[in-house]
Amino acid sequence: MDSDRLRAQIGFLVEADRLKGVVRRNPAAGGARWENSAEHSWHVALMALVLAEHANAPVDRLRVLSMLLVHDLVEIDAGDTFAYDATATATQEERETRAADRIFALLPPDQAAGLRALWDEFQAQATPEARFAAAVDRLAPLLLNYHSGGKGWQEHGVVQEQVLASNRPISGGAATLWTLAQELIADAVGQGFLAAEQVDENKAP
Amino acid sequence: MDSDRLRAQIGFLVEADRLKGVVRRNPAAGGARWENSAEHSWHVALMALVLAEHANAPVDRLRVLSMLLVHDLVEIDAGDTFAYDATATATQEERETRAADRIFALLPPDQAAGLRALWDEFQAQATPEARFAAAVDRLAPLLLNYHSGGKGWQEHGVVQEQVLASNRPISGGAATLWTLAQELIADAVGQGFLAAEQVDENKAP
Repeated sequence: MDSDRLRAQIGFLVEADRLKGVVRRNPAAGGARWENSAEHSWHVALMALVLAEHANAPVDRLRVLSMLLVHDLVEIDAGDTFAYDATATATQEERETRAADRIFALLPPDQAAGLRALWDEFQAQATPEARFAAAVDRLAPLLLNYHSGGKGWQEHGVVQEQVLASNRPISGGAATLWTLAQELIADAVGQGFLAAEQVDENKAP
Repeated sequence: MDSDRLRAQIGFLVEADRLKGVVRRNPAAGGARWENSAEHSWHVALMALVLAEHANAPVDRLRVLSMLLVHDLVEIDAGDTFAYDATATATQEERETRAADRIFALLPPDQAAGLRALWDEFQAQATPEARFAAAVDRLAPLLLNYHSGGKGWQEHGVVQEQVLASNRPISGGAATLWTLAQELIADAVGQGFLAAEQVDENKAP
């Protein structure tokens, strides 16, 4: 065994444990608390395994699963960027690229290049695998918000048009899942746990 | 789209979210708290992706990753069974089989059969994939305990011989990783954060 190589692999995997400490802004475990990025990564990988038949184009499932297992590792340094926070999303790419440079480089060079390429592929959204992976990555928080009665939306003051805009990219990876997403959003508004529009406090009654 | 089929898939995936609420007895996020079974499942899948070259026999990586993504789902009903709890391990197989019967059956029949077969394969430990998956499943808590100064071992009064016995099956999946495990265990004892043996309170001083 090449002990330097194994030591680098273990160092990367111990560093990856820190992703369990990155808290996201959507509910987990039936709405009991906020989700962290490690358990989210498991959930989206499981979703991809079960929903692969809905991808717009046939996908290499090993590549999709591998991509989803590493897609959020950069948040160890860059934190989770809330999809509805315009200030944070403006600097997201620069922060995450710097994080990718550091974190994947903990691996032996061949593996660093391989997993970094998967992360880059996810960012570029140019392959069926990347687009399908991104589709389940969007659908997951929508499902969890819907099934917890809109907990995350209400807590963060998010309204229908924002949820539609944030989830529209699902259509590029899995049109069937985008249809489902639109149904869930409409139903959440109908049931009254997703606001139809922003309340304008200055508007005359 | 077959909407009954998609509804069954989504029902399974929403049920799976509950795995985030199952707490294990080993440290996570640098020892800040106990790990849950969903984030553990992510971590072991990532470990399998990075450490696959150390498997004793060549493995189908998609099958290993898929197996690890579903291997703990039964804990939604059966709870996490602590490896060092003899009373709980005695009833573990019966409890987990009943859970598997319920949980995988939430899926459309073809997928229920496919994922249940993966779970059965993991339990049977008869293929290189199952043995390698089990090896990383054991190595993960050892790594987390080691890198948090033995937090889980101390809290639960676990000693060297128990850790060796619990981790010995790693050798059947990845001999290199079993060598590493033995080094970590010896070092933990040497550094004094894993007890060499049970303290016998009745023994004369």
